[in-house]
Amino acid sequence: MTEIHNKQLSRREALLWIGKVGGSAAMLQAAGLFGLFATPVQAQAELVKLKPLTSGPKTVLILGAGISGLVAAYELGKAGYHCKILEASHRAGGRNLTIRHGDFIDELGNPQFCNFDKDPDLYFNAGPARIPAHHTAILHYCREFAVEMQTFCNYNKNCYTQDDNAFAGKPVRIREYEADTRGFFSELMAKSVQAQAKLDAPFDDIDRQKLLEFCRSYGDLSSDFTYEGSDRAGYQSGGILSPGVLKKPRAFADLLQSNFWAGAMHFGELADQAAAVITPVGGMDKIVDAFLSRLAGKVQLKAQVQKVQLLPQGVEVSYWLDGQLQVEQADYCLNCIPAQLMAGIENNFPADYVAVMKALQRGKLSKIALQAKERFWEKDQIYSGISWTNQDITQIWYPSHGLFKAKGILLGAYSWDPAISDRISAMTHQQRIATAITQGAKLHPDYGKYIEQGNSVCWQRMNHMLGCGAVWSEDLLKSSFATLQAPVGAHYMVGDQVSYHPGWQEGAVRSAWYAMESIQQQEHQKQRQVAV
Amino acid sequence: MTEIHNKQLSRREALLWIGKVGGSAAMLQAAGLFGLFATPVQAQAELVKLKPLTSGPKTVLILGAGISGLVAAYELGKAGYHCKILEASHRAGGRNLTIRHGDFIDELGNPQFCNFDKDPDLYFNAGPARIPAHHTAILHYCREFAVEMQTFCNYNKNCYTQDDNAFAGKPVRIREYEADTRGFFSELMAKSVQAQAKLDAPFDDIDRQKLLEFCRSYGDLSSDFTYEGSDRAGYQSGGILSPGVLKKPRAFADLLQSNFWAGAMHFGELADQAAAVITPVGGMDKIVDAFLSRLAGKVQLKAQVQKVQLLPQGVEVSYWLDGQLQVEQADYCLNCIPAQLMAGIENNFPADYVAVMKALQRGKLSKIALQAKERFWEKDQIYSGISWTNQDITQIWYPSHGLFKAKGILLGAYSWDPAISDRISAMTHQQRIATAITQGAKLHPDYGKYIEQGNSVCWQRMNHMLGCGAVWSEDLLKSSFATLQAPVGAHYMVGDQVSYHPGWQEGAVRSAWYAMESIQQQEHQKQRQVAV
Repeated sequence: MTEIHNKQLSRREALLWIGKVGGSAAMLQAAGLFGLFATPVQAQAELVKLKPLTSGPKTVLILGAGISGLVAAYELGKAGYHCKILEASHRAGGRNLTIRHGDFIDELGNPQFCNFDKDPDLYFNAGPARIPAHHTAILHYCREFAVEMQTFCNYNKNCYTQDDNAFAGKPVRIREYEADTRGFFSELMAKSVQAQAKLDAPFDDIDRQKLLEFCRSYGDLSSDFTYEGSDRAGYQSGGILSPGVLKKPRAFADLLQSNFWAGAMHFGELADQAAAVITPVGGMDKIVDAFLSRLAGKVQLKAQVQKVQLLPQGVEVSYWLDGQLQVEQADYCLNCIPAQLMAGIENNFPADYVAVMKALQRGKLSKIALQAKERFWEKDQIYSGISWTNQDITQIWYPSHGLFKAKGILLGAYSWDPAISDRISAMTHQQRIATAITQGAKLHPDYGKYIEQGNSVCWQRMNHMLGCGAVWSEDLLKSSFATLQAPVGAHYMVGDQVSYHPGWQEGAVRSAWYAMESIQQQEHQKQRQVAV
Repeated sequence: MTEIHNKQLSRREALLWIGKVGGSAAMLQAAGLFGLFATPVQAQAELVKLKPLTSGPKTVLILGAGISGLVAAYELGKAGYHCKILEASHRAGGRNLTIRHGDFIDELGNPQFCNFDKDPDLYFNAGPARIPAHHTAILHYCREFAVEMQTFCNYNKNCYTQDDNAFAGKPVRIREYEADTRGFFSELMAKSVQAQAKLDAPFDDIDRQKLLEFCRSYGDLSSDFTYEGSDRAGYQSGGILSPGVLKKPRAFADLLQSNFWAGAMHFGELADQAAAVITPVGGMDKIVDAFLSRLAGKVQLKAQVQKVQLLPQGVEVSYWLDGQLQVEQADYCLNCIPAQLMAGIENNFPADYVAVMKALQRGKLSKIALQAKERFWEKDQIYSGISWTNQDITQIWYPSHGLFKAKGILLGAYSWDPAISDRISAMTHQQRIATAITQGAKLHPDYGKYIEQGNSVCWQRMNHMLGCGAVWSEDLLKSSFATLQAPVGAHYMVGDQVSYHPGWQEGAVRSAWYAMESIQQQEHQKQRQVAV
């Protein structure tokens, strides 16, 4: 425990330092980029096990039809509970949101309809877009429901890094940046090893010759341990019908001018982003569809909660439906409403519980998707993956599906820095598209020529959400996570917000599992009390 | 030119050295692994342009229906030439060979039929299995023919590395091996930078503080620049509903005991293997199918060439068909027969031409595919990718397609080292399967329990081929490549064998393009002579 907290602090310090030396501070403030909230391989692989309810019918009101709510309704229903989901918006899924032809994007003051061509390949995932293999809880449902999945390429070396402060702002293939950086880094290490009579502790048991060869392999160094370029960077010319001619490497000092090394370069190393990640064919909401097909009659849309009252036994929820205030009681309530919104909904919760809800902030995240009339990136030898820039758009995503089709949807911006996302959020829809095109043109000449239309989602303006994943500070996690996770009476806060993994469906599923197992314990205890 | 040759020599030396210090010499002898024959981004992006033939009908005999032959027949046909392909075997495609239910594998002395279940997802590519984005020539046809493509995950950090000489032979997740190795490597670099008063030339213009921060980012070091583990390696426990606890890193010296660092660890860096690579949905032979549907009536199977004679004008080819010797003349001949076999077929070629054919060796490569009744690797958090071992099987591939389906085809061995491949080649079919299962069990407990059946291909025993890609030595390339590439009269040797990129379809396509452009020039010259 201590270990992980130390690590996080040290990486925080690194972020601050990097910000100061002139990288894009905005780009680097995002914890997600540095894997602060990463969950890795084989963490919590066990699956939920609810026993069939034996204590007579129980009712559960679930507030919110995001992934946690859907999971709860599905599992509790199987175990014999009577569940009802109250969802405030016009749709189920929460931040699991795939935008395609005809969809309504309910941004406050900026409502849009999606005009993408009607084509199963033309969509974008406005919320989660990929699932790492160790997110075993959400993948459990994908498997159980036979959701068709495909690999998702998160990291493609043919994509670009573009930094206004380096290489005169010109884009550089990630392949070239990485090969050269690894090369010089390894050469410098080899020189250091050769210069030192002995290695320092704790490395004094390392064979020096082996270490030199490690440097050579790692950086693709020449026989004298210098870096003279590498075909890993691609050839300048030749290679098929004539000998390959290497590209001249860029100078190490110039490479370090770019802040790519300070974060994005290591994106493919991050626990949750490293290959292989996978995604449903046709959009992330195929998971939502799979749940909904198993929850017929249990999801009430456009039901906006007005009050939640803890009762001596159970919970009472008041909500607006078709202009009428409805009041319903249930034995249990699972509440996925964003905590900062729930704090402003009438309730009789304990003060410390509400205080955590108020303190828990939400992330700000914007995505801008562009319909291209031609998949020009494929002619530039890019099939899938992500380009990086220190402009506000931060990333450009190229689709991993629909290769060689006529058209495609680019993610023209993916910005999670709050200041950037606020700038995008303050734009009209058309201004956002125009900005994405202008900035994207620094990576792709004639970018605008190919873009037919676009759509944007700023989560901090999305109705009934007003934010993306919860942002727990270290201090708040330590002081208050347990408070929000524990039930008050028969009421549970759930969702990815009640996990160490906000912003990921895995957190949502496991928070629901946690609450359901707690309900099962409560029922078990009640039965024992009855028996006694 | 010099530069690239120096590089190759130095890497050769590295290979030899690594072999000596106890790595698996066999595993490391393969040039392919080290990218010696890599072609990279934007090399030779131009496409073939044949003008319509204006000099009256011309005939072309094409010997071999591999990719180069198919390309030639298709392009020459479009330009007005009358083409006929003579193919010795029972099928077209050459080494572009996808094995599925019912297929016949024509290994000499070891013929097999494939018994895989009849299912479009149950296949394996016995030859090429992936196409890098910069292989623009073969991809040109995939695009033109609208071959459905998908991304292919070549490098998955959740896969294993297993080395009998390290970690008591136990498999280690690549994710863990890499995170720890990068961490210690970066820590050592940081210590060196701190210890040295100044950096050596040519690094003396590097800001030391920035370099230290580079080390921190690169290795995920703590605030004092030490490596204490990283969530890049995955957590030991927690991370979703409780704080993540880091895995304890393995010792650097122990990590270096494994030879993973000497080659395979950098597989994802190689020009032709780095993400993103792509592949046809349903098998590589979808490309062959697309050509064949455009070449109706032009491909003669089971036509075995017996003699090739250069004529004063054109070429005469004698071949066996249905027990009858046929003799045909044509204006041109494109010959894709493996050079070492062609040298043993009667001809009247110049002696130096035949001498190159005789000198040009072929690689030995074996693949063993296993049908699993359950996709157990997915439950082990592996979706696609490659595991590595220093046993003879060398690699295990997990399919990038058919995720969550009931069954799957594993590539249970992919061995390109000649000595290993000879050992596999000398086994019966059943012995090969058994060997693949026994060795695979070191990476996956209960491996054998899941395997229902298998198939194997040893290219050095495949009828009409007797080898995999051509193996050009540096010396032979320099002295003789031009000889084999140039026409003798109206006869051209083609195929990936006549490229700097043997073993890749890109080499086959571009060699055919080269020959066709040369034919076009010959025709052009003839017309000018007539005009004069």
